[in-house]
Amino acid sequence: MRIGLDMMGGDFAPLEAVKGVKLFLDTVATNVHLVLIGDEQALLPLIADAQLDQSKYSIVHSSQVIGMNEHPTKALKEKQQSSIAIGFYLLQHKKIDAFISAGNTGAMMVGAIYSIKPIDGIQRPTISTPLPREDGSANTLLDAGINADCKPENLVQFAVLGSLYSQYILGVPQPKVGLLNIGEEEGKGNLLAQATYPLLKENEQIHFIGNVEGRDVFTDKADVVVCEGFTGNVILKMAESFYDLSVRRNIQDEYIARFDFETYGGTPVLGVSEPVIIGHGISKATAFKNMIVLAEKMIETKLLDKIKESFPTKVE
Amino acid sequence: MRIGLDMMGGDFAPLEAVKGVKLFLDTVATNVHLVLIGDEQALLPLIADAQLDQSKYSIVHSSQVIGMNEHPTKALKEKQQSSIAIGFYLLQHKKIDAFISAGNTGAMMVGAIYSIKPIDGIQRPTISTPLPREDGSANTLLDAGINADCKPENLVQFAVLGSLYSQYILGVPQPKVGLLNIGEEEGKGNLLAQATYPLLKENEQIHFIGNVEGRDVFTDKADVVVCEGFTGNVILKMAESFYDLSVRRNIQDEYIARFDFETYGGTPVLGVSEPVIIGHGISKATAFKNMIVLAEKMIETKLLDKIKESFPTKVE
Repeated sequence: MRIGLDMMGGDFAPLEAVKGVKLFLDTVATNVHLVLIGDEQALLPLIADAQLDQSKYSIVHSSQVIGMNEHPTKALKEKQQSSIAIGFYLLQHKKIDAFISAGNTGAMMVGAIYSIKPIDGIQRPTISTPLPREDGSANTLLDAGINADCKPENLVQFAVLGSLYSQYILGVPQPKVGLLNIGEEEGKGNLLAQATYPLLKENEQIHFIGNVEGRDVFTDKADVVVCEGFTGNVILKMAESFYDLSVRRNIQDEYIARFDFETYGGTPVLGVSEPVIIGHGISKATAFKNMIVLAEKMIETKLLDKIKESFPTKVE
Repeated sequence: MRIGLDMMGGDFAPLEAVKGVKLFLDTVATNVHLVLIGDEQALLPLIADAQLDQSKYSIVHSSQVIGMNEHPTKALKEKQQSSIAIGFYLLQHKKIDAFISAGNTGAMMVGAIYSIKPIDGIQRPTISTPLPREDGSANTLLDAGINADCKPENLVQFAVLGSLYSQYILGVPQPKVGLLNIGEEEGKGNLLAQATYPLLKENEQIHFIGNVEGRDVFTDKADVVVCEGFTGNVILKMAESFYDLSVRRNIQDEYIARFDFETYGGTPVLGVSEPVIIGHGISKATAFKNMIVLAEKMIETKLLDKIKESFPTKVE
């Protein structure tokens, strides 16, 4: 199993990426071979310092970096030697089985959608975010901000994707799917929610439990919370700000501590045909380690095969 | 100044309503005369117990109550002797200068819009919610859940209404108005946010400072945060759930304590032609007291005149 890691992506790369690799190799028993994509000159001294097991990794040199604020499409096109462009090239040509980057999110999405492609039948690939629960587990909210305007059919596909993710990656046997809404009963909400409810209700691929509200997103009412990416992104950023608040105000609470992004690492792009994981720009060692763990789990559980089976191509 | 109070509205009425009246009369120096609308038989013993100053209130008997889960339009039409119907009748006929209820929110909105009417030029009356800030003040978010689907022009009107509320009621000299969005730059967001941004930018009635994100809603980046009522309601309920969480987990923090709804009382219906305040169903004494204080302030500051001046009727 070969996992590609963009060593140049994120605010603290390449140092924290190297530290994350070391943390992974030191703490996780694995047969993963890591393909470290980045500027060899920058990487070699850091890797020497970290004393990584040489049998566990190889380096693929990249001479360019896509900056965090560059225009995604333009940058990917013009910087063919960037770590992100090379990562997608390797993934597309089956040289790696998954690709991880904490770099430019837009470039990662463009690469995932245009070089790796959506799975047949999936209209809009999506990204999710975990929402921590007090019982120690986490709910899956999607879309977390990629698809700001959605149709009801998109939300139904998010529900199926989130459900499979929850089942195979988070180990929830029969994930309860909730529609984010502003009231409990069917018929409540905006036009999108009103139109989506009956579609979710009749869908036999998921275990739909009805509407969930803003107060429910951190509870066990639903394991998967579905919404368009505008509201989803607002929820995600509000949750992050509560963590920052707790640090600033010195609130010591083991549950609130789990609102820290580092606990989770990154989010897979669900609905594209190969495992792609996007990390937060502020990712440090733990986040990089956790993204590698997630990639390994996506490959081991054959999540993408399960997704492909759930979206069968129509026979002509 | 005469303020009408529905004594039968809310989960803990009429007892907590009476307690709220007592708290108001005991702690706030005022020339307000309270018009207590409710079932005389239920009220009299409670009022006797509370030993209210008889010069400060009068009772208007109502023989019916609209339940929290009744259909708003139907209930208002059929229960003409309900406390809410009588309250709107008194307000419409200038017998009271403001009307407050913690009862059926839908019935309050229907009454506000159909018996009191929107101010000329206002397309959609709205409700707001305070969002506490660490500096002790509060931001104003609107719409908080009444208008789930909005057009850009609605959001612009919310911005003007919220700005006037922030200035006259909360005492912010030149309120900064932010558009809730999922990115910082102009051009980001869903179609609604993209179309609203330029309208806010060119509006000379407000001090528009650009986009704010989920992480900014509790900060001093903007004093007024504008969004459609779907996302607004999700934010409000998430904020409430953080308070519940802090209680459940015994987190002692004076800032988090201000996420308690009781601190604020209720929300005015902004954009209708008389002061109408809607309380939370769970309102207790402090919330009732604070709603009376808010009503008094709306009358004293002539907020509604300021709003009417900001929406001048077109001269034919």
